[in-house]
Amino acid sequence: MSDLMARLLALVHSPAGAEPLAVMRLSMVDWLACGIAGADEPVARIVRDMVLEEGGAGQARLFGGGAAPMRVAALVNGAASHALDYDDTHFAHIGHPSVAILPAALAVAEHVGADVSALTSAALRGTEASVRVGLALGRGHYQVGFHQTGTAGAFGAALAAAILLDLDEARTAQALGLVSTRAAGLKSQFGTMGKPLNAGLAAAGGVEAALLAARGFVSNPGALEGQNGFLSTHRADGAPHQPEGWLMTGVSHKFHACCHGLHATLEALASLGPLDPAAVRAVRIETHPRWMTVCNQPEPATGLGAKFSYRTVTALALLGHDTAALDSYTDALACDPAVAALRDRVTVEAVDTVAETAARVTFDTAAGPLIAGFDLDTPLPLAERAQRIRRKAAALLGPDGAEAAWRAVEGGTVAEIAALLGPV
Amino acid sequence: MSDLMARLLALVHSPAGAEPLAVMRLSMVDWLACGIAGADEPVARIVRDMVLEEGGAGQARLFGGGAAPMRVAALVNGAASHALDYDDTHFAHIGHPSVAILPAALAVAEHVGADVSALTSAALRGTEASVRVGLALGRGHYQVGFHQTGTAGAFGAALAAAILLDLDEARTAQALGLVSTRAAGLKSQFGTMGKPLNAGLAAAGGVEAALLAARGFVSNPGALEGQNGFLSTHRADGAPHQPEGWLMTGVSHKFHACCHGLHATLEALASLGPLDPAAVRAVRIETHPRWMTVCNQPEPATGLGAKFSYRTVTALALLGHDTAALDSYTDALACDPAVAALRDRVTVEAVDTVAETAARVTFDTAAGPLIAGFDLDTPLPLAERAQRIRRKAAALLGPDGAEAAWRAVEGGTVAEIAALLGPV
Repeated sequence: MSDLMARLLALVHSPAGAEPLAVMRLSMVDWLACGIAGADEPVARIVRDMVLEEGGAGQARLFGGGAAPMRVAALVNGAASHALDYDDTHFAHIGHPSVAILPAALAVAEHVGADVSALTSAALRGTEASVRVGLALGRGHYQVGFHQTGTAGAFGAALAAAILLDLDEARTAQALGLVSTRAAGLKSQFGTMGKPLNAGLAAAGGVEAALLAARGFVSNPGALEGQNGFLSTHRADGAPHQPEGWLMTGVSHKFHACCHGLHATLEALASLGPLDPAAVRAVRIETHPRWMTVCNQPEPATGLGAKFSYRTVTALALLGHDTAALDSYTDALACDPAVAALRDRVTVEAVDTVAETAARVTFDTAAGPLIAGFDLDTPLPLAERAQRIRRKAAALLGPDGAEAAWRAVEGGTVAEIAALLGPV
Repeated sequence: MSDLMARLLALVHSPAGAEPLAVMRLSMVDWLACGIAGADEPVARIVRDMVLEEGGAGQARLFGGGAAPMRVAALVNGAASHALDYDDTHFAHIGHPSVAILPAALAVAEHVGADVSALTSAALRGTEASVRVGLALGRGHYQVGFHQTGTAGAFGAALAAAILLDLDEARTAQALGLVSTRAAGLKSQFGTMGKPLNAGLAAAGGVEAALLAARGFVSNPGALEGQNGFLSTHRADGAPHQPEGWLMTGVSHKFHACCHGLHATLEALASLGPLDPAAVRAVRIETHPRWMTVCNQPEPATGLGAKFSYRTVTALALLGHDTAALDSYTDALACDPAVAALRDRVTVEAVDTVAETAARVTFDTAAGPLIAGFDLDTPLPLAERAQRIRRKAAALLGPDGAEAAWRAVEGGTVAEIAALLGPV
């Protein structure tokens, strides 16, 4: 048995402390908010309409309404929950774990009648698996063009589904071996509906692999690490040794409705309190070089473009627009003269010594320079994280909707969680 | 527009002569025979059982019975028709085109009510697209561990489905851009049920991409060739220039029920007529080095292993076992003492100067050396090809079944073809 596969299988029975489970539940609330709010986005509607026309057993609910077979629900719910690009990120592998894992885990949990504790436990282990496969794949895999949400995510989705289907170790290994042959996703879909679909494909592929393994499908458990295996074909250059402990606790939740590469900058800005934009002569942002090709659109003319623009979000924040609100990213605001004028005073610089998760912002003001920095890797106390996620959910769903999501996850049932997605 | 994408799109309206269409129809008969004969293989049953439990609109028939939504039928029928590994191969990209393209094309044709001429035309263009994407991916892509049937096949399936859904050029380009993010398949599944599933995944992914594009899904048509695109992520090293004409006419049909890498050797043997095995002191097979890791199992103990063993199939052929018959590849025969004794007199040698599609066989006999060679690339006259495919179909389906398949393809309807797969 290869090292990584053994580690993934060992996750199934590894005891989890209270904190990783609590963070997983926070991610579930966060994911529900993103999926419910994203259910009417064009990508979600298109995929949902396709599968509703296909019909089939209503095994699991869909964001936006209706129900479908488990692997089909996983496809729709992955795409819907990633449609707003407002869901969580794990920077250990630069991927979005919840949108690949939770659609798979919830669909299976709903169909098999699992309780929330079993759902949380399986989702935690699936997320952990995706981050660990992502770590093994490394930065080279991402840099060459693979989208870890889709590739590493499929392994996590398969593991979560296998756990909820109660597969034994041999069949779980078969599911992971089988998903190796279809784990996929390209960064060249960024900026299109293909990006959220990658999450759905990972979730659906994971469920499918687990369902087939449950029926005795024979694959090759060496297909992840062996000769011609996924790590070798997909340009893995990650560390051969994996850190101990639960990496899940290091997941980052988004509190701004834009690319996660911009968040350290926005947190640094916020740490200074309100500034008078008229007093700002110039702003210099220092960031890790990796983000220059991801979210450094200099003068975007659309709201979608603004979500990938250091200069634009900095101008929005300084002008008092709420960067947590979806409607701050409109075409009109991206082209607003005040935003454009302030944006022209912002420069972005790639600095090797700035961490991938950090940013440093320097303001040139009449009163002298102001410097602020932030690193998203800074541990956020659990209570503060919970409070911010509740606030985000309330902004997306209204206070009643947020409260319902919170109650369903913290002490409710899987049926109550599923009912939040939409009517059957 | 990039070169390869432009070429794929141009296929849609390229006039096809009688020969490529005739070869495509032969591949349809061959594919039907393989799928009907393979419908009870374990991989086919497992995938079919899973989707029948899911239910859904009976848009398209399944090998072995039942019907399912188009993209689901494509999954089942791809796996079922590749289960016996007896379907066609195109050596320009070392992939099995029909098992990826025809499940997609037939499912859509059945649902939209196309006629056989439209089905054949779309399948031809899809096949051509898969071979051409495979040529661009090149030998390096295959050698590093990707299974072209799954990767290149998905593009062909998407194009065939897009044509039958009557998508305009822009939406066809969207379908091809979208399928880039999920075209997948690893050689590490060889020898397991994962290999035939790769064909089903390609077919299903192609149908799904075309259905989503038909609904207005926005992807990136540059995702095949552009930055971070499929060719760059998936290690393409093929020739930048594509040959003219229809490559479909170069497809190879299998007339032996084993790995295609062994067929040149078996054809060379057959060209000598019956030999007295007792008179054969030694046999030396010279083959291209590529096949040494594919089908050179020296002493397989199983029927499946025998299908990937130069030495074993040579012994079987010399002893008069019919290498075209499925039941010549049993565990018992692989372990038969007469087979083992003759096998021990066979040596296999990798020779760089032998073409990938060729083999040279030298017999050391009491009467002196006997030398025979064969190249699968040797054009087979259409009438002879048709005759051999009819004979193969009759061996797999019985004479009545073969005749029904032939009549349905040559002058029948798509409904008649679909009905051959099984009862609803």
